[in-house]
Amino acid sequence: MQLVVIGTGLIGGSFALAARRHGLFDEFVGIEPDAQRGAEALALGVVDRLCDDVPRTADAVVIASPGETIGAWVARLAGHRAVVFDTGSVKAPVIAAVRAHCGALPPRFVPAHPIAGKERSGPAAADAELFEGQQVILTPAPETDPDACARVEAWWRALGSTVIRLDAAQHDTIYAVTSHLPHLLAFAYLQQVDGLHLQHAGGGFRDFSRIGAADPDMWAPIFELNRGALLAALERFETDLAELRRLIEAGDTAGIKSYLMRSRARRRELE
Amino acid sequence: MQLVVIGTGLIGGSFALAARRHGLFDEFVGIEPDAQRGAEALALGVVDRLCDDVPRTADAVVIASPGETIGAWVARLAGHRAVVFDTGSVKAPVIAAVRAHCGALPPRFVPAHPIAGKERSGPAAADAELFEGQQVILTPAPETDPDACARVEAWWRALGSTVIRLDAAQHDTIYAVTSHLPHLLAFAYLQQVDGLHLQHAGGGFRDFSRIGAADPDMWAPIFELNRGALLAALERFETDLAELRRLIEAGDTAGIKSYLMRSRARRRELE
Repeated sequence: MQLVVIGTGLIGGSFALAARRHGLFDEFVGIEPDAQRGAEALALGVVDRLCDDVPRTADAVVIASPGETIGAWVARLAGHRAVVFDTGSVKAPVIAAVRAHCGALPPRFVPAHPIAGKERSGPAAADAELFEGQQVILTPAPETDPDACARVEAWWRALGSTVIRLDAAQHDTIYAVTSHLPHLLAFAYLQQVDGLHLQHAGGGFRDFSRIGAADPDMWAPIFELNRGALLAALERFETDLAELRRLIEAGDTAGIKSYLMRSRARRRELE
Repeated sequence: MQLVVIGTGLIGGSFALAARRHGLFDEFVGIEPDAQRGAEALALGVVDRLCDDVPRTADAVVIASPGETIGAWVARLAGHRAVVFDTGSVKAPVIAAVRAHCGALPPRFVPAHPIAGKERSGPAAADAELFEGQQVILTPAPETDPDACARVEAWWRALGSTVIRLDAAQHDTIYAVTSHLPHLLAFAYLQQVDGLHLQHAGGGFRDFSRIGAADPDMWAPIFELNRGALLAALERFETDLAELRRLIEAGDTAGIKSYLMRSRARRRELE
């Protein structure tokens, strides 16, 4: 069983290391346009060898490259025998682009999104335990082969992940709120932070801004691909922010407290 | 040596527990308007007894009650022999209010702000190690007695804190950015989060929104007291957010990446 990993960074590298540990495949082939990253992935044993294109012998292909490259890889692999899945954070626009290009979604392509990450990136950040206990969302389309979907699900479960199936558009709307908007706000917040501020950074600052150190090469495409759902979530945020600003400007203590109480109650449901 | 703790919640309770452990005082007296909290503080050994007002015998008084009550306590204790300090997150407006009321800041009052917190509140959340390794900011005024300031500094150092002296207005401007604005943004963000979103909360969501579970009774007064500096930081945030929104709307990939790179570089300076 041969696995091809397109993009040997944090996510692709972690999948390869975990799949090796769990004996899911026999050979691990990497495709990595960044030569230094490729050499690093080889040296760290993330992959056994590097290739320029997916071999005809591949049994499985994981597309873990930046979001804007996923659609082209799926289209390119449309006739391949392998089961193909991606790891992108945005699903519906990628599916729509592939459909526009190929006429339909290739049946052996399974759209997937593991909910895991770190602020570090690259093969050296890869971690065989990254997906243990984490969710993986699959968003199969009507065209998707149920057998291919079942195999992708089984691989993720073997790594200790919980697999959930969702409609692609619903996935994008949910993750616009729970992941993409927080990243956008953390990036925007950090623009005004200077060296003096960092000398006075407490635990709240650290946690709130942690995701603002995430990889721009990964996040710029997410913001662009999921623009529709993200801008809708941002608009709702701006309305909520304007309301809190108005309460503060008006000195409406009771209003501020009941606003904060709603936020606190929601966050506490998580614990 | 008798310490009076006004407000026996997380911060006041933690100071009392830590001061007891380090042998700084012999008797610990609590003032707590919330009867249930008072009983809890007694039962947990946070204080030895409760009082309605500060005894004449007090050697030290820590004002750890919500921000809007601090000025009145300082004014009320203006003629007391004890060294008095507060733990509030906003300094200059409290000092100005006391000056307006008393003519000048009482010399034995030392404005203080320990940079430590938790999402839980109340005496049960008190923790003798809360301040270990954390910063405490003192913002003495020209009226402040240097000896009173030195004693407050020595107490905090004994608990393992690093003490820094800052101008009160500079303190408020810095903490508007590093603490008050992140709290405001987290509270606003949580308004649109619903139960379905919580089912899809990853590590990014958890860390980013953690401070949105903070105590509304503590945070409403902070937002109101530091309104000037906070609204200035918010305005800067809104400008930065509008710029990122514009880049996304324009599909300016290079512009988005360089914006995110600036944020990432700033956040990485912290590690």
